[in-house]
Amino acid sequence: MPDFTLACPIPISDYPTVQLAHGGGGRLMHQLIGKMFAPLFTNPLLAQEHDGAVFNVAGGRLAMSTDSFVVRPLFFPGGNIGSLAVHGTVNDLAMCGARPRYLSASFVLEEGLPMTDLWRIVQSMAVAANEAGVQIITGDTKVVDRGKGDGIYINTSGVGIVEHDRVIGPMSVQPGDAVIINGDLGRHGIAIMAVREGLAFESAIESDSACVAGLVMDMLDADIDIHCLRDMTRGGLASSLVEIAQTSKQRIHIDERRIPVRQDVRGACEILGLDPLYVANEGRFVAFVPAAEAERCLAAMQAHPLGQGAALIGHVAEEKDGLVTMRSAIGASRIVDMLSGEQLPRIC
Amino acid sequence: MPDFTLACPIPISDYPTVQLAHGGGGRLMHQLIGKMFAPLFTNPLLAQEHDGAVFNVAGGRLAMSTDSFVVRPLFFPGGNIGSLAVHGTVNDLAMCGARPRYLSASFVLEEGLPMTDLWRIVQSMAVAANEAGVQIITGDTKVVDRGKGDGIYINTSGVGIVEHDRVIGPMSVQPGDAVIINGDLGRHGIAIMAVREGLAFESAIESDSACVAGLVMDMLDADIDIHCLRDMTRGGLASSLVEIAQTSKQRIHIDERRIPVRQDVRGACEILGLDPLYVANEGRFVAFVPAAEAERCLAAMQAHPLGQGAALIGHVAEEKDGLVTMRSAIGASRIVDMLSGEQLPRIC
Repeated sequence: MPDFTLACPIPISDYPTVQLAHGGGGRLMHQLIGKMFAPLFTNPLLAQEHDGAVFNVAGGRLAMSTDSFVVRPLFFPGGNIGSLAVHGTVNDLAMCGARPRYLSASFVLEEGLPMTDLWRIVQSMAVAANEAGVQIITGDTKVVDRGKGDGIYINTSGVGIVEHDRVIGPMSVQPGDAVIINGDLGRHGIAIMAVREGLAFESAIESDSACVAGLVMDMLDADIDIHCLRDMTRGGLASSLVEIAQTSKQRIHIDERRIPVRQDVRGACEILGLDPLYVANEGRFVAFVPAAEAERCLAAMQAHPLGQGAALIGHVAEEKDGLVTMRSAIGASRIVDMLSGEQLPRIC
Repeated sequence: MPDFTLACPIPISDYPTVQLAHGGGGRLMHQLIGKMFAPLFTNPLLAQEHDGAVFNVAGGRLAMSTDSFVVRPLFFPGGNIGSLAVHGTVNDLAMCGARPRYLSASFVLEEGLPMTDLWRIVQSMAVAANEAGVQIITGDTKVVDRGKGDGIYINTSGVGIVEHDRVIGPMSVQPGDAVIINGDLGRHGIAIMAVREGLAFESAIESDSACVAGLVMDMLDADIDIHCLRDMTRGGLASSLVEIAQTSKQRIHIDERRIPVRQDVRGACEILGLDPLYVANEGRFVAFVPAAEAERCLAAMQAHPLGQGAALIGHVAEEKDGLVTMRSAIGASRIVDMLSGEQLPRIC
């Protein structure tokens, strides 16, 4: 039980107020969650520190996940806040190894939002839900005053069914595991930033936003002994790997030369001063599988449209120090850390 | 599948943009949900038109519900947005006849929110979750720019277990059913409005915000054949009854003289020009039970602290016209309708 005499666990001399970076996926967000939310809400399911929680109920295993979407702008090349809101939560369930089944949809609308914008957004949600094989079974609608709420915020929460006995999560990561991603990095973040900054590229860079649950089900159907899955959203590949290394207390080592980044995305990152390793994706994830199954896993992934660009980018090393190290393109080795500040606010 | 050539189903000549009333719990909100969301997301579970959805999975029956909370002010007599966010979703699960088990918590924080306010709010969530016997098992944190988001919005979604075979929902309402509420009306809405309007009463009116799941479990344990439950939040008793009448296509008749409203609440309503039947509650619900079980149901409810003021306020009549009628305090009969506009914006 909380004790209301307890002092605020975030030193208010350092952070008297919430900063944008507290939602950026980097170190400040993890500090807020780790120091304030996790100890208060403590329970074994929350302690899984995964994209969702897996629990036993009524003789079966289920997964539950939640995400609120506050992306700006609402519409971007390759999607909008509606399709993103479905993909995000469906993918979080898939990262738990669950087959997504049911979603809730909760809207915080701003007074004055054009009705036709709302109509486009909810149509995209319906299409995305249909493609992902999930049903939206319950919902909520709130409206806030003009000037608040930025048009629309959407929360989706989801329930999925775990149809196997594997324990997929950071605690299952083992030394020797292969580290595999399902394709090139950074398109979602760059698609958003290009709209915001008014950048025009020779060909539009479209968001990679997609439902990867089908791909994950294919991997499970191929009987790959998946140890861990994590989508590379806020904070990108780097933050996902650091989270997993810290939770599992394993050393993860990657090779920058093996990480696929499209040439146009790389160019845009240079213009914008961004590191593609930290740029958000919405249809990309990292998988940890036993080294002996890496080739079979890659083959299973590459047979799916969303895994065609799958690549083995590293492995789990023997040192159990919770660090992520990287051999860079020029051959130097360095530690990969979370960003302490905010790289790309409001990209999901 | 949606057809993107379809015209927006809300006539944009009438409503080119979203209005505050689209979130107010009245007719405009029901039009938005009924014409836009429900046909797009159509499925049998959503069509239950209940506070949550009940589904079968893995050999058991579960309920899922969601709510986003945007209340202003964040702190009010008797609670704050954190306790409210737990009570609201836990109560929605209870209204499905489910025992609440797991919650997700998703925060949209405004840059600049005092860290100590956040700390007070999440502590209240932890206390409320503990009292309700639920665990917060997964979450999400987003931060939006200063000036947006009004400090904090919270979404909670929940999963509960249905431990009996009853079908609790509007479809089970029958002619002859007794209509029972668990206590006096209007304290939540008046507590909020008093703070906003700077009204001082002789004694502070505290919100009725509370978790009623324990009371509902007591009713089920007493083997009451509950036909329907609905909490009386946005739009109050009147809107809840109209929703149930319309979904069940039954006539509901109530007697205004039997509806308990505290004298101070009644006085505040007069000052503010509000009708207590439409004022929001956060710890009050209406139950439909067979007439023969009404006395036993009242006794079971009155034995619980949150049901001490339980009262039989009406019955389901024979006419199957989906209307709500009321015998007023002065003896006249009238039809009770939803509000078409906005009575109390942002009370939850």
